[in-house]
Amino acid sequence: MSVKEWLKQVVWDEQGLVPVIAQEAASGDVLMFAWMNRDALERTVSTGEAVYWSRSRRKLWHKGEESGHTQKVVELRMDCDNDVLLLKVEQIGDIACHTGRHSCFFQKLAEGKWETVEAVLKHPDEIYK
Amino acid sequence: MSVKEWLKQVVWDEQGLVPVIAQEAASGDVLMFAWMNRDALERTVSTGEAVYWSRSRRKLWHKGEESGHTQKVVELRMDCDNDVLLLKVEQIGDIACHTGRHSCFFQKLAEGKWETVEAVLKHPDEIYK
Repeated sequence: MSVKEWLKQVVWDEQGLVPVIAQEAASGDVLMFAWMNRDALERTVSTGEAVYWSRSRRKLWHKGEESGHTQKVVELRMDCDNDVLLLKVEQIGDIACHTGRHSCFFQKLAEGKWETVEAVLKHPDEIYK
Repeated sequence: MSVKEWLKQVVWDEQGLVPVIAQEAASGDVLMFAWMNRDALERTVSTGEAVYWSRSRRKLWHKGEESGHTQKVVELRMDCDNDVLLLKVEQIGDIACHTGRHSCFFQKLAEGKWETVEAVLKHPDEIYK
């Protein structure tokens, strides 16, 4: 039986989760932020595709399972406290956000207002049909 | 009295916090991950330097207050759910990590092991004297 020492080294929060930043490997764009539990992280590494823990639905969430916008793992990093992960990915379909945008971080603070600065690449109705 | 509508639009968690990803604006490197409360976010925007909420010390933490490694705000982004922030910064001193490295994400998973892949630029004893 494999012990997976690397999995044991991750420091999970009181809910058994770890925050994960997904970054597009090629561009450096931060695409989204999500959470993983132990099972999600193990599956992410073993399958080479991002699997998160959906806190709202309380279940594993294979990113792209509905939209087809999966994320291929390019590299996995861990921070100095072993309690945050940085997942560098190739974003299939170029769209990470459920709004149909490239990145979830499409609102920019400008002159005291949140301004939408990224275009919708594909309408959600078309993505989730 | 200014109402600061943009601050009200942020969705705080049950502890009144929001996760923040700090990214180096010029390189795209993800430097660190931290938390802000309302006060920290307001100060970050009004002063133009990153102020976080230290969960361990339970107080505001003006990043670099001891090390001198402050972070100048270049841009502030918010995600699609209004509950995660992306802070693009200029990292003074080139060092964001308390270990003396450029980024906190210096451990990379390689062949089933976490490998340190970034050099210490300045020894912590020298930084925190």
